[in-house]
Amino acid sequence: MKIYFLSKNEHKLREIRSFLEPYGFEVEIMFEDKVEIQSDSLAEIVKKAVEFVGRRKYAFFAEDAGLFIDHLNGFPGPYSSYAYKTIGIDGILKLMLGVEDRKATFRSAIALFHPKLDEIKVFEGHVEGVISTEKRGTEGFGFDPIFIPRGESRTFAEMSLEEKNRYSHRARAVKKMLDFLLGFKF
Amino acid sequence: MKIYFLSKNEHKLREIRSFLEPYGFEVEIMFEDKVEIQSDSLAEIVKKAVEFVGRRKYAFFAEDAGLFIDHLNGFPGPYSSYAYKTIGIDGILKLMLGVEDRKATFRSAIALFHPKLDEIKVFEGHVEGVISTEKRGTEGFGFDPIFIPRGESRTFAEMSLEEKNRYSHRARAVKKMLDFLLGFKF
Repeated sequence: MKIYFLSKNEHKLREIRSFLEPYGFEVEIMFEDKVEIQSDSLAEIVKKAVEFVGRRKYAFFAEDAGLFIDHLNGFPGPYSSYAYKTIGIDGILKLMLGVEDRKATFRSAIALFHPKLDEIKVFEGHVEGVISTEKRGTEGFGFDPIFIPRGESRTFAEMSLEEKNRYSHRARAVKKMLDFLLGFKF
Repeated sequence: MKIYFLSKNEHKLREIRSFLEPYGFEVEIMFEDKVEIQSDSLAEIVKKAVEFVGRRKYAFFAEDAGLFIDHLNGFPGPYSSYAYKTIGIDGILKLMLGVEDRKATFRSAIALFHPKLDEIKVFEGHVEGVISTEKRGTEGFGFDPIFIPRGESRTFAEMSLEEKNRYSHRARAVKKMLDFLLGFKF
């Protein structure tokens, strides 16, 4: 079964394919404009993005993720990619300079449209961890070099994709969508 | 003539009223949900917000503003209110600690719907200045206590509303809308 991904992010595509392809789902990029609203809720952002596309004859989904840092009241949260391209990793480290409470949560939300469903389904995943004091590693993308998941000493960027998938917020959201797709009789 | 403002921000309402009321425009809050998209362009954000409301029998407008800091590649920009409520003024000052280039621009964009117009009109205003090294003043709102307009030594928060209006990005955008409204034969 073919399923379309409303995104132009090749890193995410690679991560998501690694989960869905073993189960026979072929994931393809959907070359359409994605409208993202401003909201504190990732679930709301992806749901609206799918709603704005409207009904299609094929299944498609949108995903959004963000790094929510406790001490910064959830910043950069839903605006993580904007923060990444403006203040960058160094900006986040500067904001966290001298801060003891380094707890943070990586969150992901997926909204799925399927022509045989009446409503848009939302799946969420998260992983708790801490912000490191320096950037480490070259794998992954975005804020991966400064996020250490709970129970680990390495950042996401120091792990292979397979290792990151064991913990990652996106992996958890994708798994929930996969369970739904496998369990639903279309 | 009555004109509606798609916003719940009482500070902005007060500023905007101070310009329009002397010319006979009664500005009222429009109690409807405002959908703001994620975009680097304020003009695009307000235009879409007005489009999402759709056609009405009365004139209404949306306004969005942001503080664009050169050294931070435009951050916090369109996400200034999110940055304000999460990292706050102290967060911005921390990001600017030790930074020599303190240039910044406050930008405002207004999108106007009028039942007698075929298209949504957009008006923009901006003011250049610098980020102060500490917060000063209690007037205004948002990042006013750390923004010093060019040619001044005081921050926006150290000025009365009348003084701020002489420089402000929002004042400039509103004046353009006013000129348009006064010049157009409805």
